[in-house]
Amino acid sequence: MPDIDPAAAERHRAKMANRKRVQDEEVASKTREKGLLIVHTGPGKGKSTAAFGLALRTLGRGGSVGVVQFIKGAWETGERTALETFGDRVSWHTMGEGFTWETQDLSRDVAAAERAWSRAEELMADPRFGLVILDELNIALRYDYLDTATVVGALAGRREGLHVVVTGRNARPAMIEAADLVTEMALVKHHFAAGVKAQPGIEF
Amino acid sequence: MPDIDPAAAERHRAKMANRKRVQDEEVASKTREKGLLIVHTGPGKGKSTAAFGLALRTLGRGGSVGVVQFIKGAWETGERTALETFGDRVSWHTMGEGFTWETQDLSRDVAAAERAWSRAEELMADPRFGLVILDELNIALRYDYLDTATVVGALAGRREGLHVVVTGRNARPAMIEAADLVTEMALVKHHFAAGVKAQPGIEF
Repeated sequence: MPDIDPAAAERHRAKMANRKRVQDEEVASKTREKGLLIVHTGPGKGKSTAAFGLALRTLGRGGSVGVVQFIKGAWETGERTALETFGDRVSWHTMGEGFTWETQDLSRDVAAAERAWSRAEELMADPRFGLVILDELNIALRYDYLDTATVVGALAGRREGLHVVVTGRNARPAMIEAADLVTEMALVKHHFAAGVKAQPGIEF
Repeated sequence: MPDIDPAAAERHRAKMANRKRVQDEEVASKTREKGLLIVHTGPGKGKSTAAFGLALRTLGRGGSVGVVQFIKGAWETGERTALETFGDRVSWHTMGEGFTWETQDLSRDVAAAERAWSRAEELMADPRFGLVILDELNIALRYDYLDTATVVGALAGRREGLHVVVTGRNARPAMIEAADLVTEMALVKHHFAAGVKAQPGIEF
């Protein structure tokens, strides 16, 4: 351990004591419980991954989780396999037909998005689920596969206590407006730029 | 389903076919496999949660995961409980003594960080682990509880094939420099501002 100057230690203690007071006051001022609409957007990595991390958190607390994948059916197989360990406490629905540039068929994409949205509505109505993840819903809205006003209206009117996580780049302004918590994942640096390929356990 | 104009459908098809060509070329150009140093930083939510989502991905692929929590020992209990489902494929070490403003004791914080770093070195050396999560390590570096050059040097010299995720705000420039993938989580909107409190399954 490095030598610590007693004066520095005391400054640290005083600073942290003050920080703790501010923190405690802040925590005490938050009193409402509320099912949250959480949005993970932006061009960076981690939008879906953080949603599945929240699933883990809910499962660890004894809750159940519904997942609807709107677009990228071929992806996230690692998470799906791992979450299957939790049996019927995870209800996973891969409704998308792969990336939009794979299908190249607009009416097929629209039909798939509509089926996915119906499934999402079922899961959101089912009181068994404390958390519903609508993975890549933002993409379906961005391409107008679904009507934004209808979808955001249904999310805003979700049953009390239900947490919903919506992922995908380019979240619509109405979605941001309706959300309680919005995180934008920004890409600072990416290994693909150095020629490194997608690897199991990391990208899927 | 809305009526789709055939010309619009064809424009969509042509655009997506072109997108797929670009995508396929890009994927073909990535040929290297490499254990990645991944950094989740920034003031937004989801840094640790996305790291635990990656743990899920690794577990779903049959791998094992090591976790060292450098700072916030009292947090992330939901994830920990859920990951315990995977038995000895998850090795979880809570080494921090809570938030820095809880301990108010610099030498205790430094000692805790040093113990955590020793544990991190053990896990990184153990070939059983495909992924090691160093949760809130950036905080320990920011407060100079650990020497940045020593830590970043050890991370850069990690064994081949090992993925490491480092989380926490205010990542040091040397950490960003050494990383393969850096995501900055930006806070767009937070429900605490609306007086909503930390809730199980979401914040912990």
